[in-house]
Amino acid sequence: MTPQERGAETRTRILAAATDCFAAQGYDATGVAEICARAQVSKGAFYHHFAGKQALFLALLEGWLADLDTRLSASRMGASSAPEALVHMVDAFANVLRSASGHLPLFLEFWAQAQRDPVIKAATIEPYRRYHRAFAELIAQGVAEGALRPVDPSVAARSIVSLAIGLLLQSLLDPDGADWVAVAAASVALLVAGLRPEPQNPRKEATA
Amino acid sequence: MTPQERGAETRTRILAAATDCFAAQGYDATGVAEICARAQVSKGAFYHHFAGKQALFLALLEGWLADLDTRLSASRMGASSAPEALVHMVDAFANVLRSASGHLPLFLEFWAQAQRDPVIKAATIEPYRRYHRAFAELIAQGVAEGALRPVDPSVAARSIVSLAIGLLLQSLLDPDGADWVAVAAASVALLVAGLRPEPQNPRKEATA
Repeated sequence: MTPQERGAETRTRILAAATDCFAAQGYDATGVAEICARAQVSKGAFYHHFAGKQALFLALLEGWLADLDTRLSASRMGASSAPEALVHMVDAFANVLRSASGHLPLFLEFWAQAQRDPVIKAATIEPYRRYHRAFAELIAQGVAEGALRPVDPSVAARSIVSLAIGLLLQSLLDPDGADWVAVAAASVALLVAGLRPEPQNPRKEATA
Repeated sequence: MTPQERGAETRTRILAAATDCFAAQGYDATGVAEICARAQVSKGAFYHHFAGKQALFLALLEGWLADLDTRLSASRMGASSAPEALVHMVDAFANVLRSASGHLPLFLEFWAQAQRDPVIKAATIEPYRRYHRAFAELIAQGVAEGALRPVDPSVAARSIVSLAIGLLLQSLLDPDGADWVAVAAASVALLVAGLRPEPQNPRKEATA
């Protein structure tokens, strides 16, 4: 292993250990010493990679969001219309639910800490605003193309982001309460039906 | 004041102090001594009313939910059809957002603690399951009446509950990011449009 590879491996190990500790006990009750012990690294190595617990927390958030961003962009690219892009983006979201279920409890920690820590708050709000803008653009495009009803794109985008957050949180709290991936797909089908000019009849000349 | 009135007043003061402490520092970092100091009651008085911090936390959750239940039932009673009831129930939800905004951060604490405490988890999940059943019943009724499309009532009800939770959490994290009451109204209008047999044309003989 080169020193670069060893450094990257140490960083990954610290992030994984922190994920486990934060999820098990919460952010407040977890100390840097505990993360170091679990990751089997020295404090020196820890502080070489992260300025502190908050910086580590933010790095976890960024890594998670970068993954979600990549999936959402890819699914948007592959779609031929705004309604199709919306459906694809939900599939991407469902994949995130499926693949990251063990790490999702951290999400609640981000939200809870955001209320008390302005730096974490800013970092937590920013991606939701970004998703909101992306969905609003997509809906505006769909409205312009006549594929969607003339709704307010900003408001409709907030509905979609709210629905996604609500599904995520319910699936965390009550994982066995429903097939959340199926619920996510059905929910967006419902919203898209509400956004379409004429959900039942495939005729083009709908009266507006 | 009678002893009963004095007891009720003390209990209310403890609940208010606990709300402030939990919201400001989180559940983990708040001790019974701190709640007693803020409420200006003795530890003896505290333990006369609550078995401990967890019991107090659950009492806060119950009080909050009882208020929401009353509002939701009242709005359902006053409606003449399932779609109208859905819209009214959102108004009730919006009123909760408006009136309780100072206490809402506690919600995130309930969710975060639910992950680590099975008693709090059970108490936190139960109301969502109850709301889910109430909405599923309402949607089944609307489908039977022909006022809604023949969707799966259970799945559609989860969409509604998810949307409500997502709106609640976004309004907590980013209160100035949008007019959340207006967004809530528009979101449900969108879902109801998706659930209606024919959202654009008021003709009765829609092809299914």
